[in-house]
Amino acid sequence: MKVIATVAEMAKLSREAKRPLGLVPTMGYLHRGHLSLVDYARKENRALVVSVFVNPTQFGPQEDLAAYPRDMERDMALLEGGGTDVVFAPPVEEMYPPGYDTWVEVDRLARRLEGEARPGHFRGVATVVAKLFNIVRPERAYFGQKDGQQAAVIGRMASDLNMGVQVVVLPTVREPDGLAMSSRNIYLTPEQRKAAPSLYCALSRVRELWQGGERDAERLRREARAMLEAEPLVEAIDYVSVADAETLEELDTVDRPAMVSLAARMGRARLIDNVVLR
Amino acid sequence: MKVIATVAEMAKLSREAKRPLGLVPTMGYLHRGHLSLVDYARKENRALVVSVFVNPTQFGPQEDLAAYPRDMERDMALLEGGGTDVVFAPPVEEMYPPGYDTWVEVDRLARRLEGEARPGHFRGVATVVAKLFNIVRPERAYFGQKDGQQAAVIGRMASDLNMGVQVVVLPTVREPDGLAMSSRNIYLTPEQRKAAPSLYCALSRVRELWQGGERDAERLRREARAMLEAEPLVEAIDYVSVADAETLEELDTVDRPAMVSLAARMGRARLIDNVVLR
Repeated sequence: MKVIATVAEMAKLSREAKRPLGLVPTMGYLHRGHLSLVDYARKENRALVVSVFVNPTQFGPQEDLAAYPRDMERDMALLEGGGTDVVFAPPVEEMYPPGYDTWVEVDRLARRLEGEARPGHFRGVATVVAKLFNIVRPERAYFGQKDGQQAAVIGRMASDLNMGVQVVVLPTVREPDGLAMSSRNIYLTPEQRKAAPSLYCALSRVRELWQGGERDAERLRREARAMLEAEPLVEAIDYVSVADAETLEELDTVDRPAMVSLAARMGRARLIDNVVLR
Repeated sequence: MKVIATVAEMAKLSREAKRPLGLVPTMGYLHRGHLSLVDYARKENRALVVSVFVNPTQFGPQEDLAAYPRDMERDMALLEGGGTDVVFAPPVEEMYPPGYDTWVEVDRLARRLEGEARPGHFRGVATVVAKLFNIVRPERAYFGQKDGQQAAVIGRMASDLNMGVQVVVLPTVREPDGLAMSSRNIYLTPEQRKAAPSLYCALSRVRELWQGGERDAERLRREARAMLEAEPLVEAIDYVSVADAETLEELDTVDRPAMVSLAARMGRARLIDNVVLR
């Protein structure tokens, strides 16, 4: 497993790599969710690049960039032996040199939900992923469903800009109690950690109602919100959404594939989760 | 010479093309400026694609999209026999299908001069060129110095987004009286056409003063503006700029390579031109 820190070396290596080449972009501090992407990507490609880069441009000025957990040694140990050929871990100034001035922006799709709660977030995400796609030029890139809107935004960008990269979205990996794996879960106190599965409980309840025939989106949103509000450790709810799975426009009636998504704050952590009804 | 209208076919062909591959992006209605790019590109590449696409997203709502001159038959005749392997001429809905939602934007560099006079213009330019680069994946792409800021914006984008495309900028081709070649020159009445070289006269005067040792940028701007104002058929001056050739920030003192650029209106035409002092 090679570890590479410069854009030039990564671009050169990927031009010579076996094909198809898979890319798993991460911000490091890897958990089983990331590793499931690596496993899956390993199986359907002849070469595999994992990028580890805490992208500053997707954090707002009030967000947790400085505190975001980093542990490169642990990440390398987790990847070693798992079939990764190259780890691309550039320093910030390699990705954003002085004078950097170009941004990729998905418009309507990125304005709602996380985009509304975190202005500029998806501009940073789309920009860094466009750069990674151009540097690595993979045939396929892998993302988790847990960041459902992110996956939709990246899929839209890759298609709109004719990037020739297939965006593969894999199921959310969860703790035994249902909490979606996330590097940010370490922000939770033991008490908050115990209460954190309330998001998945609310999503499961919505799914159950839908399976029972409920198609009124507003009733589903109300039910999920009521369940979150019943958990005293949930301090604020950013949104509860039942939206078209492709455009993320809020639905009145669930008459097509839908993404049910939640964002809630619990102490230092801001948790998001979603399920797709289809 | 093949003519291709779909993104899928163009992408497939360019994946199989000889390398290096050159790309000359145009909006058609070709003149000797374009043909000089084609000639030059032909010589340094083993395959050559010319795109012909009047890109709607770089025109403002009050601009000349509908009136922009088009003559595909004439363009094909001009290219035929000149070494172009493939002409990529997609319809608008092939480049911007329903639901299209992604934009590439260069920030500071694109805010001034043309960007200030034509809001959204460079967003459209950067987006369509990013798409063309991704579809064709050339080693080199060719642009005229006449659209000096455009060339700078595209160079910045290609570098910032790690596109792996070398942006080659070639000298402005001029009519015998100095008027820069432009598809929009057909908007000029015979009388305006006679007065149109006043832009180049002003630029030449600035160059002469600079060659004589003048380094005060404001004095150079004043001189150019006075010369344009002396021409009664110039109806409005959008800007007169003496700027750092790379960042396009206005200079006080010409102590580094500088781009002197002008934009002026004459009837239906909006003329731009520039010279580089170095």
